Amino acid sequence: MFAILVYDTAVERNPRVLRTCRKYLHWVQRSVFQGELSAAQYRALLAELNSVIDRDQDSIMAYATRSPDMVNTACLGIVLGNSSDIL
Amino acid sequence: MFAILVYDTAVERNPRVLRTCRKYLHWVQRSVFQGELSAAQYRALLAELNSVIDRDQDSIMAYATRSPDMVNTACLGIVLGNSSDIL
Repeated sequence: MFAILVYDTAVERNPRVLRTCRKYLHWVQRSVFQGELSAAQYRALLAELNSVIDRDQDSIMAYATRSPDMVNTACLGIVLGNSSDIL
Repeated sequence: MFAILVYDTAVERNPRVLRTCRKYLHWVQRSVFQGELSAAQYRALLAELNSVIDRDQDSIMAYATRSPDMVNTACLGIVLGNSSDIL
């Protein structure tokens, strides 16, 4: 799988969300992660994030495709994150 | 096509980036847009954004798949944007 994850969470929870995402994906931009992972890892990531956030205040969107070659990535301007994962 | 677009741009350029994205996609979260559009519209969006940003300071990542059904979207917590486009 290939996943893109974006989050809009309360400031006090950002560090834990960031740490959780870093275990599975690569930082791309503020509040944006991407990367390749297995379906089991993807489920584990979402379960872990669900236990970290306040579901009445925070928002996380995760987009997943079966494989990286289903996604065409375009970068305009500077690449902030780990460009090795930019497809 | 289905596109997800995330941007990390200087504050003074955010309004124009936001306005440009709104012409083609739906706001989902701070600095995150998504939506279905044609290949021509996608190219036009990227060309327009390229003329709006400062390519030495700003960063835009755009992820596109040939069709929406290639993307599985998961929402944790609250849905901030226009939920009608959440797949």
